[in-house]
Amino acid sequence: MSTPVHDENSELYQRGMEEICKQLGPMADAYIQNIKSLSPEFAWVNVTFPFAELYTRNVLDLKTRELCTVAALTVQGFSIPELKLHIRAALRCGASREEVVEVITQMIAYCGFPAATNALLTAKSIFEDLDGEGTPQKPPAK
Amino acid sequence: MSTPVHDENSELYQRGMEEICKQLGPMADAYIQNIKSLSPEFAWVNVTFPFAELYTRNVLDLKTRELCTVAALTVQGFSIPELKLHIRAALRCGASREEVVEVITQMIAYCGFPAATNALLTAKSIFEDLDGEGTPQKPPAK
Amino acid sequence: MSTPVHDENSELYQRGMEEICKQLGPMADAYIQNIKSLSPEFAWVNVTFPFAELYTRNVLDLKTRELCTVAALTVQGFSIPELKLHIRAALRCGASREEVVEVITQMIAYCGFPAATNALLTAKSIFEDLDGEGTPQKPPAK
Amino acid sequence: MSTPVHDENSELYQRGMEEICKQLGPMADAYIQNIKSLSPEFAWVNVTFPFAELYTRNVLDLKTRELCTVAALTVQGFSIPELKLHIRAALRCGASREEVVEVITQMIAYCGFPAATNALLTAKSIFEDLDGEGTPQKPPAK
Amino acid sequence: MSTPVHDENSELYQRGMEEICKQLGPMADAYIQNIKSLSPEFAWVNVTFPFAELYTRNVLDLKTRELCTVAALTVQGFSIPELKLHIRAALRCGASREEVVEVITQMIAYCGFPAATNALLTAKSIFEDLDGEGTPQKPPAK
Amino acid sequence: MSTPVHDENSELYQRGMEEICKQLGPMADAYIQNIKSLSPEFAWVNVTFPFAELYTRNVLDLKTRELCTVAALTVQGFSIPELKLHIRAALRCGASREEVVEVITQMIAYCGFPAATNALLTAKSIFEDLDGEGTPQKPPAK
Repeated sequence: MSTPVHDENSELYQRGMEEICKQLGPMADAYIQNIKSLSPEFAWVNVTFPFAELYTRNVLDLKTRELCTVAALTVQGFSIPELKLHIRAALRCGASREEVVEVITQMIAYCGFPAATNALLTAKSIFEDLDGEGTPQKPPAK
Repeated sequence: MSTPVHDENSELYQRGMEEICKQLGPMADAYIQNIKSLSPEFAWVNVTFPFAELYTRNVLDLKTRELCTVAALTVQGFSIPELKLHIRAALRCGASREEVVEVITQMIAYCGFPAATNALLTAKSIFEDLDGEGTPQKPPAK
Repeated sequence: MSTPVHDENSELYQRGMEEICKQLGPMADAYIQNIKSLSPEFAWVNVTFPFAELYTRNVLDLKTRELCTVAALTVQGFSIPELKLHIRAALRCGASREEVVEVITQMIAYCGFPAATNALLTAKSIFEDLDGEGTPQKPPAK
Repeated sequence: MSTPVHDENSELYQRGMEEICKQLGPMADAYIQNIKSLSPEFAWVNVTFPFAELYTRNVLDLKTRELCTVAALTVQGFSIPELKLHIRAALRCGASREEVVEVITQMIAYCGFPAATNALLTAKSIFEDLDGEGTPQKPPAK
Repeated sequence: MSTPVHDENSELYQRGMEEICKQLGPMADAYIQNIKSLSPEFAWVNVTFPFAELYTRNVLDLKTRELCTVAALTVQGFSIPELKLHIRAALRCGASREEVVEVITQMIAYCGFPAATNALLTAKSIFEDLDGEGTPQKPPAK
Repeated sequence: MSTPVHDENSELYQRGMEEICKQLGPMADAYIQNIKSLSPEFAWVNVTFPFAELYTRNVLDLKTRELCTVAALTVQGFSIPELKLHIRAALRCGASREEVVEVITQMIAYCGFPAATNALLTAKSIFEDLDGEGTPQKPPAK
């Protein structure tokens, strides 16, 4: 059986890239290009599956989705680089810093202090980076 | 140093029990008594720490908190008994079944299919139990 | 943005279902229908993403892929239902029972005895089921 | 290169079996035979590596070792069958039920409530089994 | 319902801070202040729950508790920053370096080599730091 | 009972060291010496158990074993240092870079994107190191 053909001009791929940009902001393109330079398949799946398929469904608003993702990455403990992306994404989608910290704090009950502390200090470094960048995080235009 | 004294009539403990009942409903008392029969310390911490301390804070609404907890327990993969409690809790706090399933589906991207499928089938069994019980899940009175 | 439209007659979905059947055998259809009854989105992603996208690529043969998946599910420790599917799939794709057991044994070094023992006893129960079913596992026709 | 030869009469294997019996008691033999029936290699490594190599070293007493193992299996969350063995082993090596419960309770801080509650309820079922068996657990003779 | 009031002069909080200082030594205060600067709630729970509630109970001696915590953090694999704190704490509470290394070595059997090697190299770096600091680690005064 | 005696001239140890060298190449000796400087027991077990016992068995070829190990370390998420060793080992044992990347990509389905992305970027850094070292990776002589 032949390997599937991937068309970056397809509605599916375009929908995924649009969604990534909404969440990750200006860094979205470089993020995908970096992955694509090693594995076009990985990049294709990354764009089309979580972003085009999952995040575009109307059942949950983006802010709630991102807080759930922050919760998930917090309890995993090792997902620090991805957590950084999604803390920024949560802020871009309308969550306040206080809400992000609250979700991480709640997770103490489900993963204990080591993983939650890792996540809290990650949030702290992101907030400091944002203050340094002087970029007020606003929710994306609908 | 002496072991801390625990007063079940304290404001802290009462606040925690009230919060557990709001989330877990009629099963809350039996749940805590079961734990307490083996370890009063474990039960005390269970009541006072996540429920009295964390869930009563006003920063996030209960529905969002419960969806975040469902996300966290889904990615852990092994937390099936606790996941059952919190799927019921999410429904009691105003989440729809569709929203619970959506959070679990979103988690495929963060934990892969094995853990997400475990969670989806757990949700299915809870929904079937609820249908059997004939108990329409309503959000708790504020 | 509207939710993506899913066409089960599409080449992508058909390719995924064909691949699932090759790996899981007669149980494939019931497996997907069970998931679909609760969440059509979950089922769609399950068919199209790992099976249509990943397993059909020619870079690795199916037997090697399945042994890698057995390794992965062994170290996770909690993925017992999925491990059962993939031990059967590995045998269907040409791996011997001895090779499946060898991969699990090798994993002791990477996940310790608790997770590896869980996997070994899971393999044992699958082998006993297969002996009971009287179904000699043959590699699928190319 | 040829596969290593394993001699069950060797000092190493005998030392390991003696140590397993000290910890697991009468069930030790059946436990190893069950594993050996599927994979002699797995059984050999299980006997010679943790038991002959690690547990026989004099640096730590057996009770402390078993409490550390209970702690480790508690935080893993999915290691319930192995946890059952080691709760019994801890009691056989001189730990009290209260001490076992205390270690599990302490672990709430490092793995959160889901994994700790799984372990607590596992301990409870072991204690009930022991009461039913009418076997007062004594420390092994030195 | 209003958010709980936290009184840092309370017996509970003072007990927790005293216990943290006993375990972590001079770095205790900076550790808690760093967390508190981002989330006073997280810091309050960190002081009052594991330290005031759990570690002050007389059922287990502090050295055994710390070795259990080292075991738990070793198998988690990702808890390197917390592991550093607790290796130092174990030494302060009377464990020898040899005993800390022994617990980590024992954990190979429960988590495999990757997590155990991470922990061993973490212990090595702590021991080198301590040698550089010229601070002989003594058990705390009772 | 006395602690086991370890003889580095034994057939077992020599077999293990030979296997490590075959897999890890020139860095093998320094790797083991580093561990041995802190814990001779840990180093002994590391050489004799996975390498002398497991990897020398003829049931699976080394390339398949290494791809399974890459799969396992990918899904664990936190095993980055060990993953680096085994990506190099896989290449030394005859796997192509494309095959290593394919295994990691397949793992998205079993561990989600955070762990798989960590592994992909780790592979990328290894490939860049190898290009910088100018060492064409060849399969070891049989």
